[in-house]
Amino acid sequence: MLIYEIIDKKRRNEKLLKKEIEWVVENYVSGNVLEEQMSSLLMAICINGMDFKEAYYLTKAMQATGKTYSFDFDIVDKHSTGGVSDSTTLILTPILALAGLKVAKMSGRSLGTTGGTIDKLSVFDNYKFNVEEDEFKKIIQTVGASIISQKNDIALGDKKIYALRDKTATVKSIPLIASSIMSKKLACGAKVLLLDVKYGKGALMKNKKDALELAKTMVKIGNMNGTKTWAVLTNMNTPLADGVGSAMEVYSAIDAINGKKSYLREISAELATYLYQMSKNCSYLSAKKVISQILKNPNAIMAKLQEMISAHGGNCEYLMHPENLINAKNYYELKASKEGFVTEIDALDVARFVMLLEDRAGVERKLFQGVLLNVALNTKVSKGDTLVKIYCDGELTDDEVASLEKAIIISPNKINIEPLIYKVVRSVK
Amino acid sequence: MLIYEIIDKKRRNEKLLKKEIEWVVENYVSGNVLEEQMSSLLMAICINGMDFKEAYYLTKAMQATGKTYSFDFDIVDKHSTGGVSDSTTLILTPILALAGLKVAKMSGRSLGTTGGTIDKLSVFDNYKFNVEEDEFKKIIQTVGASIISQKNDIALGDKKIYALRDKTATVKSIPLIASSIMSKKLACGAKVLLLDVKYGKGALMKNKKDALELAKTMVKIGNMNGTKTWAVLTNMNTPLADGVGSAMEVYSAIDAINGKKSYLREISAELATYLYQMSKNCSYLSAKKVISQILKNPNAIMAKLQEMISAHGGNCEYLMHPENLINAKNYYELKASKEGFVTEIDALDVARFVMLLEDRAGVERKLFQGVLLNVALNTKVSKGDTLVKIYCDGELTDDEVASLEKAIIISPNKINIEPLIYKVVRSVK
Repeated sequence: MLIYEIIDKKRRNEKLLKKEIEWVVENYVSGNVLEEQMSSLLMAICINGMDFKEAYYLTKAMQATGKTYSFDFDIVDKHSTGGVSDSTTLILTPILALAGLKVAKMSGRSLGTTGGTIDKLSVFDNYKFNVEEDEFKKIIQTVGASIISQKNDIALGDKKIYALRDKTATVKSIPLIASSIMSKKLACGAKVLLLDVKYGKGALMKNKKDALELAKTMVKIGNMNGTKTWAVLTNMNTPLADGVGSAMEVYSAIDAINGKKSYLREISAELATYLYQMSKNCSYLSAKKVISQILKNPNAIMAKLQEMISAHGGNCEYLMHPENLINAKNYYELKASKEGFVTEIDALDVARFVMLLEDRAGVERKLFQGVLLNVALNTKVSKGDTLVKIYCDGELTDDEVASLEKAIIISPNKINIEPLIYKVVRSVK
Repeated sequence: MLIYEIIDKKRRNEKLLKKEIEWVVENYVSGNVLEEQMSSLLMAICINGMDFKEAYYLTKAMQATGKTYSFDFDIVDKHSTGGVSDSTTLILTPILALAGLKVAKMSGRSLGTTGGTIDKLSVFDNYKFNVEEDEFKKIIQTVGASIISQKNDIALGDKKIYALRDKTATVKSIPLIASSIMSKKLACGAKVLLLDVKYGKGALMKNKKDALELAKTMVKIGNMNGTKTWAVLTNMNTPLADGVGSAMEVYSAIDAINGKKSYLREISAELATYLYQMSKNCSYLSAKKVISQILKNPNAIMAKLQEMISAHGGNCEYLMHPENLINAKNYYELKASKEGFVTEIDALDVARFVMLLEDRAGVERKLFQGVLLNVALNTKVSKGDTLVKIYCDGELTDDEVASLEKAIIISPNKINIEPLIYKVVRSVK
């Protein structure tokens, strides 16, 4: 098989065969296909696309370049394409464990402007992210849930291809994104997989159309593999809760568990309901009943979260005293410059502002830099009211604080708030 | 400037700026832009294209990575995109020198299935292709014409990019082909440039539409540079003369000079006429008169060709005894299997057959392998008539000889022969 012909085929916008895709991935990993040849093929895929079948073959070929985990019990998994103030995993995981499901999650660090679950769990001192397979399985069996770093031995081909895409501007391709995510997810061995595909200002997919396409591709790949896979498309224009920054997001997660209303609490409940429904093959309403019952007992959820963190060696001090999560050296406030209603809080602008704080603080103290929003959509504000509380170790000039102003739009009238969940994709023809 | 953003721009099908194209070429040559990044950009260009301006900027950026030659006198140059039995240069060059023009040509070796001028001139023992600049200029001034190998110091960027395109299946792109050719042609410093853009079975461009697009792109680039550039689109479905293979093509060129009718003689006369017209700024008819007059004196043309070859140290024995060009060890014939009219002679099939003979003979004797067609389009043949005379050192089985049969189609009725010249492109808006 000649790499030249395979690249040329995709250049001409033709479909690649299973054996061609397998051959390319194997030979790229072994070094027979050159970096420059793979780049040229990836760009042809970026522009001319891949259909569901090709994306599935690519997913399986990349999965086959590493280990696939398997369990003696059925595992559920949730994956988010990345959001701002998205600490859903911390809320969802103990709820599902309390509902009797087994949650196994290999998580990542932050990507671009969106925080990663591993960063948030890093707030808990001594949390071990690299536990051995046996211990991983033991924790899941005894506690009901374990969250660890993505294992180095899965989907090696994806790792090599991702690094190349990052260098060659071939990241923005729905089939490539879908295959990359799914090659790792399928390698984790879940029986039931729920994908939270975000769209909007703070998400990788800026619009509903692209998010739906990505969701469909991943659901199709999962189902072709025999993994029960659904996707929920959720709005990521506004931060999901008031905290942005690792420690602040843990703070918001605890608030949400304790009953404070937010998109974060709402989305966590919905995703838990869908995962329960998928696992138990029951109706949405019966699943909803089970999850609502659990949500009525915040102490039990907190205890389960503590149990999971402890099982990984993590120090749970902050769960008892979440107020200590706010420990940055300096405090600033962004105040309203006029009166009116908050009609927009741009998730990307807020996330970028927090990244600036993190960059100034240095690696050691990065996790504790962040903001707490003091307003939500349609909050009425007067001139001088506090819009955002800023916690950071570095010093900010007035202009720097004011630069956050563009993230929050104040208008004379309230707006109609878009629903949080746009669509659920359960199967794809 | 970030290479990532430039690649991404072309991925989104946007136009690149002059400074972006210059930056990429400079930094690719210096090694700051990686092979894999350049491949990804080249594939995006292959699929999304480039407009005339972008192609011109690319041409100039590649030209700027090497030396540009200049002369104290006005130089004319002709470039063919490559044909089968296309020894036009050997006929055209002495004619133009006799007409008082100065011809400077840096030629290439064969590319794919089409022979190169350098291969044909290699038939003349001791011909020096690598003369120094001073000697090159002196030959042009005294003889009126010099043909040498492409200098190594021109368009280094094109060389590096071409090698990468060859590895990464990014060859088939009209703006990339046009920029590659023109970066070298402009570096040769001609004032007047005529492009012979071939289309059809034996050409790089398989159809008129692509050939026209390539011609327009090159004419536009030449004219933007201030070089008077025209393109002639010529039919390359059928070999231009009866000889195919280096020595056989020299044989056909001598025949053509001596008055034997063929597409080769016709095209050489036409191209010479256009070049004269372009140089002298006269009418087609006055140019035609001058060239026709020269064509009436084959001895003078042969003497001028000999003078040019001798000036490069070449042994001119074969010009005196062209029959000696036919010196292969073995002789075979392809015979007609039925009676009728020859309605097709597939230039690509014939060229591939000759490549097979060349591969068998080895490097030393490669030039002397080839065929002489014994028929032309609309020749009436009876069963058993000789269609092709095959001259080679290797032994051929009956099946191998018969494999050439598919190249020549015999039908009950004559066909209308397409005109040799489809179009002349003199300017592009």
